Amino acid sequence: MLEYLESLPLVDHHCHGVRDRDLGRAAFEESLTEAASAGPPGVSMFDTQVGFALRRWCPPVLGLEAHAEPDAYLARRAELGAAQVNARFLAAAGLDALYVDTGHTPEALLGPPELGRLAGADAREIVRLEAVAEEVAAGGATAAGFADEVRSRLGARTAAGGVVGAKSIAAYRAGLELSGPRPSDAEVTGAAGRLMLAAEQGGTGPRVCEEILHRFLVWCAVDAGLPVQFHVGYGDVDADLRRGDPLLLIELLRAMDPSPALLLHNYPFHRHAGYLAQVLPNVYVDAGLATHNLGHRAPALIAELLELAPFGKVLYSSDAFGLAELYHLGALLFRHGLAGFLAGGVEDGAWTAADAERVAGLIASGNARRVYGR
Amino acid sequence: MLEYLESLPLVDHHCHGVRDRDLGRAAFEESLTEAASAGPPGVSMFDTQVGFALRRWCPPVLGLEAHAEPDAYLARRAELGAAQVNARFLAAAGLDALYVDTGHTPEALLGPPELGRLAGADAREIVRLEAVAEEVAAGGATAAGFADEVRSRLGARTAAGGVVGAKSIAAYRAGLELSGPRPSDAEVTGAAGRLMLAAEQGGTGPRVCEEILHRFLVWCAVDAGLPVQFHVGYGDVDADLRRGDPLLLIELLRAMDPSPALLLHNYPFHRHAGYLAQVLPNVYVDAGLATHNLGHRAPALIAELLELAPFGKVLYSSDAFGLAELYHLGALLFRHGLAGFLAGGVEDGAWTAADAERVAGLIASGNARRVYGR
Amino acid sequence: MLEYLESLPLVDHHCHGVRDRDLGRAAFEESLTEAASAGPPGVSMFDTQVGFALRRWCPPVLGLEAHAEPDAYLARRAELGAAQVNARFLAAAGLDALYVDTGHTPEALLGPPELGRLAGADAREIVRLEAVAEEVAAGGATAAGFADEVRSRLGARTAAGGVVGAKSIAAYRAGLELSGPRPSDAEVTGAAGRLMLAAEQGGTGPRVCEEILHRFLVWCAVDAGLPVQFHVGYGDVDADLRRGDPLLLIELLRAMDPSPALLLHNYPFHRHAGYLAQVLPNVYVDAGLATHNLGHRAPALIAELLELAPFGKVLYSSDAFGLAELYHLGALLFRHGLAGFLAGGVEDGAWTAADAERVAGLIASGNARRVYGR
Repeated sequence: MLEYLESLPLVDHHCHGVRDRDLGRAAFEESLTEAASAGPPGVSMFDTQVGFALRRWCPPVLGLEAHAEPDAYLARRAELGAAQVNARFLAAAGLDALYVDTGHTPEALLGPPELGRLAGADAREIVRLEAVAEEVAAGGATAAGFADEVRSRLGARTAAGGVVGAKSIAAYRAGLELSGPRPSDAEVTGAAGRLMLAAEQGGTGPRVCEEILHRFLVWCAVDAGLPVQFHVGYGDVDADLRRGDPLLLIELLRAMDPSPALLLHNYPFHRHAGYLAQVLPNVYVDAGLATHNLGHRAPALIAELLELAPFGKVLYSSDAFGLAELYHLGALLFRHGLAGFLAGGVEDGAWTAADAERVAGLIASGNARRVYGR
Repeated sequence: MLEYLESLPLVDHHCHGVRDRDLGRAAFEESLTEAASAGPPGVSMFDTQVGFALRRWCPPVLGLEAHAEPDAYLARRAELGAAQVNARFLAAAGLDALYVDTGHTPEALLGPPELGRLAGADAREIVRLEAVAEEVAAGGATAAGFADEVRSRLGARTAAGGVVGAKSIAAYRAGLELSGPRPSDAEVTGAAGRLMLAAEQGGTGPRVCEEILHRFLVWCAVDAGLPVQFHVGYGDVDADLRRGDPLLLIELLRAMDPSPALLLHNYPFHRHAGYLAQVLPNVYVDAGLATHNLGHRAPALIAELLELAPFGKVLYSSDAFGLAELYHLGALLFRHGLAGFLAGGVEDGAWTAADAERVAGLIASGNARRVYGR
Repeated sequence: MLEYLESLPLVDHHCHGVRDRDLGRAAFEESLTEAASAGPPGVSMFDTQVGFALRRWCPPVLGLEAHAEPDAYLARRAELGAAQVNARFLAAAGLDALYVDTGHTPEALLGPPELGRLAGADAREIVRLEAVAEEVAAGGATAAGFADEVRSRLGARTAAGGVVGAKSIAAYRAGLELSGPRPSDAEVTGAAGRLMLAAEQGGTGPRVCEEILHRFLVWCAVDAGLPVQFHVGYGDVDADLRRGDPLLLIELLRAMDPSPALLLHNYPFHRHAGYLAQVLPNVYVDAGLATHNLGHRAPALIAELLELAPFGKVLYSSDAFGLAELYHLGALLFRHGLAGFLAGGVEDGAWTAADAERVAGLIASGNARRVYGR
């Protein structure tokens, strides 16, 4: 079964750019997990599930033995240089397509074209909705003109080609408790005014954090015919995880139907997400980010996600960010975990080998192709 | 251990009627999970844990090979006819008694007597409390006379025999955050007035959805000497799962003591339910509905439920509804899961074979007999 | 791996005193779980995971066969007498140090010096913050003098030596949703006044239950240079588990940084706790209390805790209370569970045996020594 999965190219429907510069140990450890720093004195982020998974699976790609010590690994990484490292790991991921969220770039990252070239895969773009709104607000639009300008800019991005979906980061800001209905123009104008005023008073760029605006943006994406990804659950320390439970989103999910909603990450609420995927026809789920962070425990996560989620509603994503290793680890741990899950069922007689291969194909790429229409 | 469990007839303490008509593929898929429809184009509800479990275990009961394709299975089902299908699956479940929730009948379903006859088991009734209240409200009672009429009707149902418990569906309406105290007569009268007014204005039948009324109904059941079942967690798409966490119910559970409270389904909050079963003397739990929906993963659910729940507080239910297959699948997956759990403990030396058999007997029927006094 | 872990003495960083008197069966069953009573008629607290774990592992320490029947076990226990029983189980735990929460003594319990002597270990004290505040409030302080008196008493306790940390039981009272900032003197004075007034009016001792006071106490401990333990999740029936989710505490955890915060117990929110340990540099976690209560399922708990929690952030505690058996069971089930987890990884090639031993050392005692500075 693993061999079969290794033969299947994946659609990675949610990922990010990677750095094209070399990294010291502290910067590397910071990139390895979702913490904002490399840990207090005495605590190494290599001593984590993802750290051990990296030491097991990544050194061989760079020509070292598995389980290389962190310093030896980083020395070899520096020796090869970022370009070579990125090329090797992107190629190792075995991707057919990758959909890149281009809205979070705290520093220079490789963009979709370079990623696609390195991966030998079709690279497309996921528009981060809040980033569009913040550009509009920062670009001199009036509050009254905000809604139309957002719609127009989103339409232009979509029409220009390459954009296959949109993403909401409401979970990081207002939280996922979004209502269902399209907000009225007057509500959006009011909220846009507050957004601009806060930016002016704060002397910073505009920062979308009001429920009305997150909801408005989701509806803009729906109206533009784009599937909408939602950050759910696990993420970096900015997220207030309490507000990231996908059950909070149920009203908007219902209201959006039949437009597809894709719940990303989901851990530790992945069983909640699986429930939503079963009972709501337009809801899809993945376990990106968590899969590589859980390392040796990824199979448990995948099995729990597949309790209620229909197998035709589950997608693959890496949510790789910054380190090219995460493209490889995400894909590898996903293939191993799913292969173990499916092979275990075949062994116990729960399903046939033919059904297992069919399901593998759905989750590896078939479901993503159906949802994104590609 | 499995052989031992197969020799034990079960008390299925929460189940529903089944259809006595043949079903096309779409209707069958709709009945297979808790979704309201058979899935968007390209997504089959057969490609789920419960779908694969059905294809594995049910075809042989109808004379087909395990893992029959869905269409072949449905053709054979139609060939045999609903009466024969129902008879085979009810008999296959291996039940000693079944307690039927008769309060949810969106279409014609077999009632307790027919179910009991087919299963060769003692069939009793669970009264759905909100249905009693809605009958009273629709039947011309005054707001002031509502409370007495509900009590009287519940008393009459109980006195007529056959009723062994009551069920609250607060989780589907107001949510499980119910207070503890008995509401006063004035509070009930007020709420009954609002219930009747809303029905009159809406032009629909009355629909109980106010916290006071759910709580009042639970107290009516307690006063009538009936164990009270609560829908908890997983259920169809009507439920707002956020409000279905059993921890929300703790005040009423405490207040009801020593009257037994039975928490049904519980997934994905089954660990929360197990905690309540340990710390509150009057609380009992099951994993009905989730057991067959999780299919090959049912053993994980059973093991998690049995982390904190005392083994003398765990019951069996199928929560079968509509499809007779679910009676068989629920019982079979429960027996396999519990057998695996208990046999694993024996193998590891965690408990003796004698203790394992004793615990099997408690969970299969002993606990239910003690709680329901039968 | 198990042998290696058995060779490592543990630091039990959160535990309580044990009784030094003999116990009848009802009292013993009450002490075995977190319920307030021994279960309704027909339900034995021996028929639980912890009950079976006790019957498996404890009789041999008293010279009986494993799996002794409860009555035989209790007879042997009575025959040996509490002093002998306590000595055997404390010694069997294999501890190097134990940090005793001395703030919950509903009845006479052995204190740190006796526990240390029996365990052959360094015994230190954890100050329960709310107990200090309640002593001050009961001791005639004025509302205006309350804050200084609490600080001074905490300082005196710390200066006298033996105190290595503080503990907050906010989870049992106001819940874990505590704000971040230090409360002002005026806020503390106001809350102290209400605390004293309620005690006077109620005719009972003062009982801290206001958010401001819990938060004030945590800041007192931080200012005194003490690591702060928080009760989280699972505990006795007094706790409102809904308010015990560690995600509720995130603001205070952030605000306290870099002062260490130790999240105790955590079940069933242990994955939430693991997330916090990963993303917040000053957060540490354990699985005390739950480990022995889950018995044969403890390995699953340990594996789930170690999904996101960095291995340098996980500590051991028993949370033993009342029964000396729980010191032994906690340590034994922890060693078995962690050994299984680490050995499984070695077997699958997830990490090397050398790394596994290093991680075992961190979790058994190294992390505790680093955090508590001993």
